[in-house]
Amino acid sequence: MSGQKKRPLEFSISGFPEYLPQYRRVEMRWLKSIAETFESYGYANIETPSVEAIETLMAKGEDVDKEIYALTRLAADSASSEEAKLALHYDLTVPFARYVADHFSELTFPFKRYQMQRVWRGERPQEGRYREFTQCDIDVVDQNSVSLAYDAEMLEVVMTALARIEVGPVLFQVSNRKLMQGVSEWLGAKDAQVLARLIDKLGKMPREVMIERLRAECGLSDGNAEKCLAFADIKGSFAEVRARVAELGVTGAAAFDEGMAELDAVLSRVESIASGSVRVEADLSISRGFDYYTGSIYEARFVDFPGYSSICAGGRYDNLVGSFIRRNLPGVGISIGLTRIFTKLLKEGRIEGERACPTQILMANLDAAAGPATASKAQVLRARGFSVELYPEPARLDKQLKYADRKGIPYVWLSFAEGDQVKPMFGGEQRAADAASFVPETPAVP
Amino acid sequence: MSGQKKRPLEFSISGFPEYLPQYRRVEMRWLKSIAETFESYGYANIETPSVEAIETLMAKGEDVDKEIYALTRLAADSASSEEAKLALHYDLTVPFARYVADHFSELTFPFKRYQMQRVWRGERPQEGRYREFTQCDIDVVDQNSVSLAYDAEMLEVVMTALARIEVGPVLFQVSNRKLMQGVSEWLGAKDAQVLARLIDKLGKMPREVMIERLRAECGLSDGNAEKCLAFADIKGSFAEVRARVAELGVTGAAAFDEGMAELDAVLSRVESIASGSVRVEADLSISRGFDYYTGSIYEARFVDFPGYSSICAGGRYDNLVGSFIRRNLPGVGISIGLTRIFTKLLKEGRIEGERACPTQILMANLDAAAGPATASKAQVLRARGFSVELYPEPARLDKQLKYADRKGIPYVWLSFAEGDQVKPMFGGEQRAADAASFVPETPAVP
Repeated sequence: MSGQKKRPLEFSISGFPEYLPQYRRVEMRWLKSIAETFESYGYANIETPSVEAIETLMAKGEDVDKEIYALTRLAADSASSEEAKLALHYDLTVPFARYVADHFSELTFPFKRYQMQRVWRGERPQEGRYREFTQCDIDVVDQNSVSLAYDAEMLEVVMTALARIEVGPVLFQVSNRKLMQGVSEWLGAKDAQVLARLIDKLGKMPREVMIERLRAECGLSDGNAEKCLAFADIKGSFAEVRARVAELGVTGAAAFDEGMAELDAVLSRVESIASGSVRVEADLSISRGFDYYTGSIYEARFVDFPGYSSICAGGRYDNLVGSFIRRNLPGVGISIGLTRIFTKLLKEGRIEGERACPTQILMANLDAAAGPATASKAQVLRARGFSVELYPEPARLDKQLKYADRKGIPYVWLSFAEGDQVKPMFGGEQRAADAASFVPETPAVP
Repeated sequence: MSGQKKRPLEFSISGFPEYLPQYRRVEMRWLKSIAETFESYGYANIETPSVEAIETLMAKGEDVDKEIYALTRLAADSASSEEAKLALHYDLTVPFARYVADHFSELTFPFKRYQMQRVWRGERPQEGRYREFTQCDIDVVDQNSVSLAYDAEMLEVVMTALARIEVGPVLFQVSNRKLMQGVSEWLGAKDAQVLARLIDKLGKMPREVMIERLRAECGLSDGNAEKCLAFADIKGSFAEVRARVAELGVTGAAAFDEGMAELDAVLSRVESIASGSVRVEADLSISRGFDYYTGSIYEARFVDFPGYSSICAGGRYDNLVGSFIRRNLPGVGISIGLTRIFTKLLKEGRIEGERACPTQILMANLDAAAGPATASKAQVLRARGFSVELYPEPARLDKQLKYADRKGIPYVWLSFAEGDQVKPMFGGEQRAADAASFVPETPAVP
């Protein structure tokens, strides 16, 4: 807490990002744009509390307990207080499932919601991993079955959202858990889940180690372990994937054929909407760690930073809401890792800070007696949509101009006895002006 | 977690509000409007982490430790982990002061910021008191001294914000800590701070008990205790307050005269801007519990619910940032208790839910083969600013109309071989339509 200049990603509390106003302004613009994209597809916003009962957070079935932050009252009266059962949520999918269960009778299905909130994970901070970060999620849940059309819509919406905020080249990778299931059956693996988790770690260990583990943990022969890796190596357009899958000769696994049909249906809808910067392809190596995915699975990565963690992820889950209510409410969802994207682009120098304040016009204060008249003019300008600040006390004009300059305020308003003048700070002549009719000569500064 | 219908203020986790989409939509509109008001006065947004070091939170000097939620990793490797020192913030003022200290060299002063975030307090939930709630704060800090003009601006900005979101009649009450200090000196009280804290509890205990406590805890005589209560009873316009203060005959306390001059300066600027629904007056009974206030103090209450907790509060503080950096950075700020306002008006039936989703047009799905063409039309409509949803699978039209009706979607788009038609769901005739030129006949539904 020295007040010394810090680099933009050196945070006061390790793992808990905070930004200077000029960068927060960019993040806010992104959040607004993402929300607008989500709403343009009919997703309704909800927010859930930051905490859930610990047993709710455990319903996901995965080994996540190490990452959870539980709450304790600093001066609790007794250890058995209610709060002892509460913890900060570590994603937005589980809270959403609990929300749907709790409000089931008041929602209309298919229920399409978006949620943009902070989540917390007690991980060791490192590049792309924070203890507090913002996620932007969309999910659809429906009763008994959820249309495959939504598996494609998930991709369409987030691809559109990322293209709009211009995060640079991104590759979406799509697969289907049924393919992994089918391959597992075809190769005679002991446990499809274990196979999926191993494949999820592909690229994080040498090929020989992976083969050894496929033999040891899944009971595969050397030949079948090789086939498994050949499978995970397949990627490209659906047509390319189909051809390579045919070469591999997977047979006798109904789940595999079903997965291929679903992958075809999803990709055929989104391959056409991919723009130059945001592309999509099938990639059979992606498997997502979470056990609850049952069909389509998605990941997205920066093309320019291939080693960086995935920046979007999601998939189809058949029984998550069912953990909280005796109903069958399958769903499909995807999450944008906003903080992970924002901090990486900040670090790489690809985000330029905007103005540090929203002010467009600074009303100079040259004469205390003119205060009420200046305040009235400021109100007229605000009613016309301008952001207007009053310099608080009479002061030398050069001091006031310096303040405007340092804050990047584009106009300074000067009230003289003989009439008002406006001084543009970034080019242009000082000129006569009237609060009721003033128009900036440049396009509005963000 | 029964899925049974709950009342809007019966939350799944006690003290942690969450709303149905139709109410969240209102809250979002409010948040947007408040942010726009703040920005129209030149306040820049920041967000700070949800946590601070516990020692940072303790810097305020008040006895707040019982209310603080500390974090613990559910499966921590050791008790001495870094997180053991972190806790959720219980307001936005202390984190802001820490932020200013940390980023001092990169900010321009006077620094005007707004912050709209959740805060947490481990209190027993009751009406108006939650364990997690949203506050909307503005603050100005400056080097060495902060202009009194900002004491008035605080009120102007939040009065404008509350009038715009139409929360109904609100009374802002203004006083000045220097008055309390002056009265304390005049009456020979042992400790002005203790006096202020007692006055803060006025109305929460019988008059005789208050007099007894003023005698016992502040060392006042019976006569002086009566005078103290007469002082705290003064309220109204500044002119009225001045007259009654003169009657009371406070003498010899320089702090008192200073406080009166400041109160005059603040009220003279804002008495004129008070609208019919949002009024302001001086009220010498308000004293705010927090020790760090040194000048102007503010509170606001619902006129219609006088017994309900204050819905805005703030004041001037001279040395809060100085707790974290060796500099003199006084400030003044005010906070809108958004959750407290929203939940009360919800409970009183004064908030009507809006539509449960943003969708304006539902593209009916009558024929799977028409899918790509319908998707293209939806994109044309989205590019024109509409929120458009596709019914995911071909289904009977009456089922699709029922879905639109339940979600409050105003238009259903029907693609027929002979041309497109649009069916308004809330009055109006079904008519021919074209995606490139469609215009709703009613004003846009929120």
